[in-house]
Parts: sequence; C-alpha cells; structure tokens
Amino acid sequence: MSKNVVNPGGTESQDVTRQPFPQSRKIFVEGSRPSIRVAMREVDLTPTRSRTGEILTENPPVRLYDTSGPYTDPAAEIDLEKGLPPLRRPWIEERKDTETAGRAAAAESPCNAASFPRQFTPVRAISGARITQMDYARRGIITPEMEYAALREDLLPPSTEGNPDRITPETIRAEIAAGRAVLPANINHPELEPMVIGNRFLTKINANIGNSALGSSIAEEVEKMVWAIRWGSDTVMDLSTGKDIHDTREWILRNSPVPIGTVPIYQALEKAQGGPESLTWELYRDTLIEQAEQGVDYFTIHAGVLREFIPWAAARTTGIVSRGGSIMAQWCMARNEENFLFTHWDDICDILAAYDVTVSIGDGLRSGSMRDANDRAQFAELRVQGDLTRRAWEKGVQVINEGPGHIPMHLIRENTDRQAEWCTGAPFYTLGPLVTDIAPGYDHITSAIGGALIGWYGTAMLCYVTPKEHIGLPDRNDVREGVVTFKLAAHAVDLAKGFPGAQIRDDALSKARFEFRWRDQFALSLDPEKAFEMHARSFPEAAKGGVHFCSMCGPKFCAMEISRNLCAYAKDGAAPAGGENA
Amino acid sequence: MSKNVVNPGGTESQDVTRQPFPQSRKIFVEGSRPSIRVAMREVDLTPTRSRTGEILTENPPVRLYDTSGPYTDPAAEIDLEKGLPPLRRPWIEERKDTETAGRAAAAESPCNAASFPRQFTPVRAISGARITQMDYARRGIITPEMEYAALREDLLPPSTEGNPDRITPETIRAEIAAGRAVLPANINHPELEPMVIGNRFLTKINANIGNSALGSSIAEEVEKMVWAIRWGSDTVMDLSTGKDIHDTREWILRNSPVPIGTVPIYQALEKAQGGPESLTWELYRDTLIEQAEQGVDYFTIHAGVLREFIPWAAARTTGIVSRGGSIMAQWCMARNEENFLFTHWDDICDILAAYDVTVSIGDGLRSGSMRDANDRAQFAELRVQGDLTRRAWEKGVQVINEGPGHIPMHLIRENTDRQAEWCTGAPFYTLGPLVTDIAPGYDHITSAIGGALIGWYGTAMLCYVTPKEHIGLPDRNDVREGVVTFKLAAHAVDLAKGFPGAQIRDDALSKARFEFRWRDQFALSLDPEKAFEMHARSFPEAAKGGVHFCSMCGPKFCAMEISRNLCAYAKDGAAPAGGENA
Repeated sequence: MSKNVVNPGGTESQDVTRQPFPQSRKIFVEGSRPSIRVAMREVDLTPTRSRTGEILTENPPVRLYDTSGPYTDPAAEIDLEKGLPPLRRPWIEERKDTETAGRAAAAESPCNAASFPRQFTPVRAISGARITQMDYARRGIITPEMEYAALREDLLPPSTEGNPDRITPETIRAEIAAGRAVLPANINHPELEPMVIGNRFLTKINANIGNSALGSSIAEEVEKMVWAIRWGSDTVMDLSTGKDIHDTREWILRNSPVPIGTVPIYQALEKAQGGPESLTWELYRDTLIEQAEQGVDYFTIHAGVLREFIPWAAARTTGIVSRGGSIMAQWCMARNEENFLFTHWDDICDILAAYDVTVSIGDGLRSGSMRDANDRAQFAELRVQGDLTRRAWEKGVQVINEGPGHIPMHLIRENTDRQAEWCTGAPFYTLGPLVTDIAPGYDHITSAIGGALIGWYGTAMLCYVTPKEHIGLPDRNDVREGVVTFKLAAHAVDLAKGFPGAQIRDDALSKARFEFRWRDQFALSLDPEKAFEMHARSFPEAAKGGVHFCSMCGPKFCAMEISRNLCAYAKDGAAPAGGENA
Repeated sequence: MSKNVVNPGGTESQDVTRQPFPQSRKIFVEGSRPSIRVAMREVDLTPTRSRTGEILTENPPVRLYDTSGPYTDPAAEIDLEKGLPPLRRPWIEERKDTETAGRAAAAESPCNAASFPRQFTPVRAISGARITQMDYARRGIITPEMEYAALREDLLPPSTEGNPDRITPETIRAEIAAGRAVLPANINHPELEPMVIGNRFLTKINANIGNSALGSSIAEEVEKMVWAIRWGSDTVMDLSTGKDIHDTREWILRNSPVPIGTVPIYQALEKAQGGPESLTWELYRDTLIEQAEQGVDYFTIHAGVLREFIPWAAARTTGIVSRGGSIMAQWCMARNEENFLFTHWDDICDILAAYDVTVSIGDGLRSGSMRDANDRAQFAELRVQGDLTRRAWEKGVQVINEGPGHIPMHLIRENTDRQAEWCTGAPFYTLGPLVTDIAPGYDHITSAIGGALIGWYGTAMLCYVTPKEHIGLPDRNDVREGVVTFKLAAHAVDLAKGFPGAQIRDDALSKARFEFRWRDQFALSLDPEKAFEMHARSFPEAAKGGVHFCSMCGPKFCAMEISRNLCAYAKDGAAPAGGENA
C-alpha cells in the first residue's frame, strides 16, 4: 500500500485503500477477444470437516460481482497520477466514428487544486455518426462493452452452460435497444469497466461523493470513490460544488473503473456567480461539453421542472428538496420564463449523443416528506420525464429516470407503475425512498426499506443514503455504512426477483454458518472486516477459529450445534453426543 | 440520576438511565376512573418565525406513545429495590377472582445473585374462575387494562373527538374476544402499563435481553430492560440462561412497566442438568408455575415441533436454528417420543389460564437461511400452531404465533396469509424476517426490511434483531441500534396501514425540518440524542441553533433554503432575495 502514495491536492499525501478481501482472488473471465477480460472476485472456501478433522466435502469457490476495480488486486500497479489503463480505447478506436474534440475550457474560477498531470485528449462523434450504445444496439451490433457487461452479470458457475437463465450479450443488446437498459459509458471514459443498468439485470446502487463548500480536499474525494466502489457501489456521482470542481472530477474520472455521474447545473451555478437567476443556456451548454469531454458517464438534468408546476410544490409541507429542482424553480420564477433545460432539450440531447453520455432525468419535484408523497407536482414532473425520455431516444441518447424521495410503503408501487408506463420502460433510479420521516440518524435504514421495496417493484438502480442524511456531512464510515446497506437491499431485490445467480452466495454463506466455518462466513459477507471485528470483540477466543458454537448462545444452548448433532443422528441413527457440545 | 443507585447483584453499583427526552414532558391521560392514568410523552415545539424573528405560527405540542415507563419522568421516584408502583393491583383485587398462590420453588441451582428484597405474594385464579383478559372480553366486560390500552393507542389530538378512526375501549375488547389481539398482563405483574398487540393496532416491537452463559450480571440485565424500553421496545423477552435466572427475572419484573416474555424451556433445561433428553414434563410444569407466579406475561412454547417433522428439518441447509426448537427436537429423537409440550398442551393451557399468561407459540422449525424458507417443515409446524391456538382459546388463553426467520421478500406474503388462515387471525409475531443471509454485521437492517414488509402484510409485533445477530453478543449500543431500527420499521408499517394518529409525528418533524427548527426536528425524532450528536459533529456552529441552511449542502446550494425563498415569493409575488441565503 505504501507504494501508492497520491498527492493530488498538492497539500497532503494520502494512500488509497488497496487491502484485498479475505480469501479472495481477482479472476478474469475472457470474452470473444483477448481485450475483453472481465474482472471478478472469487472467494476460496475451506472444506467441510468432521469433528475429528477429516474432510467430508470440498466447498467450491464462489464467484462474486466485483465493483472494486484494480484497487483490490494485489497484482495491479496503481498510480493515481497516471490513471487506470484505458481498456476501452481500442474498442472505441476500431469503431472509427469519433474524432478529436477541442478540449472545452476548464472551470473559470481560480483553482487551488493540482491539475491532473497527464493530458487527456477528448474525442467526440464524427459529425452525423450515431455512436451511442443504444445506436449500436438498435443496429443489431453487440459492442465489446455489451459483451463485457453480459459476462459480468452472469454469476452462474460454468457447469450450467446452456442454462436458459444465463445472461447473454444478446440479452443486453436487446434491452438497450428497447430503452429498458442503459450502459453508461462516455467515449471519453476509456478506463471504465462496462456495466449495465436495467430491471432485468442485477440491481445496482450509486453512492454520492462531493467536496461541498464546507469540507473535503481533492485527495479525499479520490479516496472516497475508491472507498465507495470497494464496498460495492456500482456507480459514483460526484456532487462537488465550489472552486476545484473541474480538477476534482478529472482525478476521479481518470482513476474510476465505474461510471461517474454529475449534476452539471451545480458547476454552471458556480460559474454564474450571482445566483440561480443569472444562469444562462450558454453557460450551461458549455458546462455540459466541458464535462462530456472529461468523460462523465451520466448527467442528472432537471428538465421536467416546468414553471406551471412550481406553485404546487411551493404549497407543500416541505416545498422542493432537490437542489437542482430548487435552482431551476428559482430561475423560472425570477425570470418568468420556462425552464431552459426543457426548452433546450433537443440541443442537450445532441451534445449527449456526441459523447454517449447517458441522461438521468432528474426528479426536481420529488417529495421530501410523507405528507408530500405522490402529489400533483411529483406526478406532473414524471409525465414530462416520459416525454423527454422518448425525445432523447429519438437521438439515440440512453435514458434513466430519477425517482423519489420520501414515500410511505403503501404509495411506493404507484411510483414504479406510473414510471414504467409514462416513461415507456426506461430504467428507474430512485433515492431510497425513505418510508418515514422520523428517524434522522437512521435514514440509511428508512431508505433501504423503501429501496428494497421499490427495487422489487422494478427499480433498476438505488441511490444510497447515509446515516447522516438530513443532519450532517457523511464521513468515511457513513459512506461504508450507506453503501453496504444499499448493497444488501439490492441483493435482497435480486433474490426476490429470482435471479439465478443471486442465491449462490447466500447458500454458501449459510452452509458455512451452519458448519461453524466462521472465516468462510465472513469472507462471503458483504463487509467481511466488520463482521470479523464484531465477532472478535464479543468473543476473542472463538475468533481464532475452530470453536463449535456461536457466541450468541454459548456452548450449552447453541441451536446450530444441537441441530448439527441432530442431523448426524438422523443420518446415522445414532444418538447425538450431548456431552460433546463444548 | 445519582439518587437512583441500584445494587441488585450485590457486586457493583449502577445507575439506571433516567435522562428525560429533550423538550418532552410526561403527561397522564385520565380514563373513566382516577386510577387509570395513561402515561404519554408530549413534545413541546417552538413557533415558526420569520427571518426577523416574529412569530408567524405557534406549533402545537405532539403527543407520542411512550414505552419508557416512569424512568423518563423526572417527577417519578425510582427505587429498584422497591420496584415500580403496582398500578394494576386494585383492578385485579376488585375482580375478586384470584387468591393467594403458594409460591413455587425458586431455581434450584446455587444462586450468586441477591434476591429481590421485597417479598411479593403471588396470586392465581380461584378454582373454576375464568380470569384472563380474553375471558373478560368474551363476557363483554371492558377491563381497566383494556381502557388503558385504548387510551394509549389513540394518538389523535383531543380536537378530533367523535372521529370514527379513534381507538375505543370497545374496539380493544372486541379484538381480544375474537383472538385477533392480546393484552399480555399476568395478574402477578401489577407494575405493568397495559398495552395491546394486534393487527388493527400500532405495530409493536420486542427486544431480547439475556445474561447468556458468557457475560452480563443481573445489574446489567435490569438496566438493559430500562434501556430497551427507553428507545421504544414495547415488550422485553428475558432469554437468560445460567445460574441466576430466577433472581434476574424477579428484579426485571418488579421494575418493568412493559410485558416480560420468557422461553421457560431454557430454565427447565438448566434444572435438568444432563442435557435435553433428561427434561421431563414435571420439571417443565414446575418451571411454568414458578415463572407464572413471578409475573411473566408471556411464554414462548415450542409445542408445534412434532417428531415427524424433524427429519425434514434435519435435511435442510441450516437445520434447526431455534434454540427451543432444537432442544425439543433433540428430546424427541433421543427419547423416541412425541414432544411433551404438544402432548401436555391442555395442562399447559390450564396453568397459563390461572395467571393470564399469554402464550406465544414458538416456531421451532423456522427457516435459518434463504434456501430453507417456506419449506415443508416450517409450514407443517405452522399448521400445528393453528390447532394449538384454537385449543388454547377454548381455555381462555390469549395466543400469539411466532414466525420466521430468514425469508426472501417474494416469499414473505405466503407466511402472513397462511398464518392468518391457519391460526384463525391470532396475532403474528415474527423475528425479522431477514431478507438475505449475506450481511452479518448488518442484520438489524436485513431484518428491518423483512420486518417492515411482514408488518405491512399484517404482523402485529416484530422481534428486533441487533447488528450482532449471528456473530456476537449485543452490547448497549447494539440494543439501542436494534430497537430504534425496529421502531422505525414498525412506524413505517403504521403509516402504510394508514393509522390516523401515525403521521402526525412525521408531519410535525418534516415541518420543523423545512423551517430549520433543528431542535424541534431532533426532539421529534426516534433517537434525539444520536441525531443531535451527528449534527453537532458535522457542524458545530449550526448545532448551536439558528443557522438557515443544512450542513449537507452549505449555504449556497441548500435546496430547502431556496425552496423557502420560493414559497415566500409564491405567496408575496415578490422576487426571492437571493443574496440573503447565508
């Protein structure tokens, strides 16, 4: 780890986290060409043994979807100043439909952060070329990105070859062509390990990072990205505001194996100086191009906040709780004009299409409280999101729709049903939703409940919420807690959807648990370090391994232990040895 | 707090937690007679003010259901050696259907703990008298306990008098008479503040405490009870095993304002010395009487684990994960006899009826992993639970049914549907269920997701799970985390069920949040201390009050702040003052 010293901000040195996971190896599943090498994690398990130590059965390794990139691979050389290897570059170049773009101006405000040292040459579509993954999918072409994503989604062991449940590249292509899935992969983000977001695929999660006006340095932001993907975040949104926004993003993008999303209006507002009402289309357009040329994979754009909806939202218990939504609402009211993101939608889509930036149509009027859930303002915007979705598709732009928010459980279903209908099946991407307002400090949990439910109803990606939601700035532990919480909710969804590869991990972990293979249990868990630490703190002796009872109950009362005796008894016809429990 | 020194174990001195909640007063709602004084918590709120400090509107206090007993009332005198005042005693005595019971022998094993200093004289039903709350309900009688519980459930403000949604004593009576609700209130637990458990009422939660062979002292156990009810636990199960089990329970009962549950087979097994197979009916019967005379309000009894089901369970991925279930299974197999809890069911019910102990029919064969969910063993036992329910009702015994366990989301509904049908509407009481196996260290969350779902489907009480489930012994923080997590899940259920009083708290908190009344927001939250601490840590200046933006976004980007300006604008027709944001 000490080799990977980073000094992006010029002010402090910092390592990025590179600890491999216990009992885990990075493996690479090769596709139809040598350059398609899909990184996965494989967890080695110990054999099942009898009391006397004989091996009864071997336990095969378990293959896991891996978002952590090369950082958890001890064999990978990481140098944050060089960035990750641009594995997609040959795929992009061989398509011969892009050309060098004039690099857009960087942030205009004075910059305190070190610029990324390597000059990156952005590309864009050759005039007239249709280059998005959706364009290719519609033409019947399976790109290397699609094949990569397909191999990644498919967690069935190789022995089940030919199983109709397997995810194939053709499935991915067809879903993208229909708009039911997106593969967010800006042509200027060649470092990306391609992944897919859609209702038919594994449920994805997003973590937000951001420097915020009140804290953080660039160095911390890069590590936050590495930290978030370590625990399972499938994409990362950089919600930075403030001075160093352009350079922060460059460091993150060049070192990110996952799609990066942003909300460009934040940077545009920084440039506008005088507050929301001084925003202009030109300022915003230039910001879009700047970020697209850096390689941002998806943009949140609040184009559905129409002027006529604002009075409805203003009359609510909690008004407008989306930052982007409130900025645009203030713009509309102050200028007495229609939202320029709406009026310039075609222009926006033309820019996105030239770089294959996916659009995440924001829900600026989402509910911020139980009382405001599913109200007129929220659903009026959702209808507009649907119109914008179809217009973007016409230009080949990949689309996801953002959703709420704060919604009591019984009103969640209406959201997915309407979104699916009004937005013609485009992937849904929700923030929680929180299912009660009364638990600040525990809102990762209130939102994981809503997230699990809305995921099961068909939401393709869940945006995480940390325990600090509403009350403070998330620190490192909050980010981990939020990511793991949403990962477990997403996994619960995958089980409930009956995805064939999902339950393999649960089965292996439960078998390890029942057989008191503690280390295997921890290695298979979402957060092996935390599980091990908690166990060791309660029970220092047991943590050293080999103890045949769980620390909850003690030796005499251990249900698992009695039950194991019983299983042996049921098999052998011999009485279980009651005295042997300790 | 220093006045309330406790020294129950004789070995260490300890305070119980008595900190009142911020901005909160204990109030007492009086019923039809002066002795019915229902304790509630009322939270005072500050007024809504303009920027210049003028009062725009007063915010009325919010009344909250309060499980914490006299401990959070600064006016209450607490002396753990005397126990709480026996508020139910006059109600029990005026019914003239009980007589002094011969106190059953205490635990036979050598006892290290101090005995409770005050001699408590137990009572039991006069021979032939039917004295349970169910018996009274069936005879059309509304007991003071039912009236107390009704006033407690009813969270609507007094101004809504006459509203058909109000919970009335007659509603409570009718539900208890039909078996759809229970009011667990042993006649030997006069210190109890009566409460009701049923699908039509607020969702309840239970916290487990226990000394376990490997840790804890009696002093810690009493404080654990006080701690669990402080954060919102509606009942507490004492799952202690080991030497001081009798005295531990006595200290807890005499000081508990909430129903206490136990699993009597644990103590019987202690007495049996030689392991499960040396258990006898006589030993168990005496244990039931001993605990009933102490005042335990409900017993978990694993009478549905029939011998013929055991081979099915033994063949599972995780066998039997219930302690009581595995003890009984081992007994059946070793003795080659039918479960004596099943064969002695009528005898058991006669004992329960004499003290009004509610029975919680255990689910000894609940699933312990995704793979085992809803299998033959689990549902075979559930059918038997239904038969046992109806037989108990014949004797006037109040019944709840315990349920799983580990269940993926899509299989949860089948559990509530079958339980409702097979157990004829008796209240369901579930452990979680956990919706995935792969998150040890986060199982309070995996189970809160399942808990929220199964609660919405009709489960009346949720047993909490702590973050240490499967991996260690919960400490004080784990108990708090588990209780608050389940409280928020239960509240989410109450919102989803549309209970008229439930959303008042959410509305008040969200209004406070939108108006930047931080202290009010914290005071209304489930864990005011944690919310305040997290806020203060992120943002020490703001925590001192009065800052008009949220620490998440900073002054320039605060959506709430922009939105508030907007609301003012929408009302006044004047442009919002963009420069005022800080």
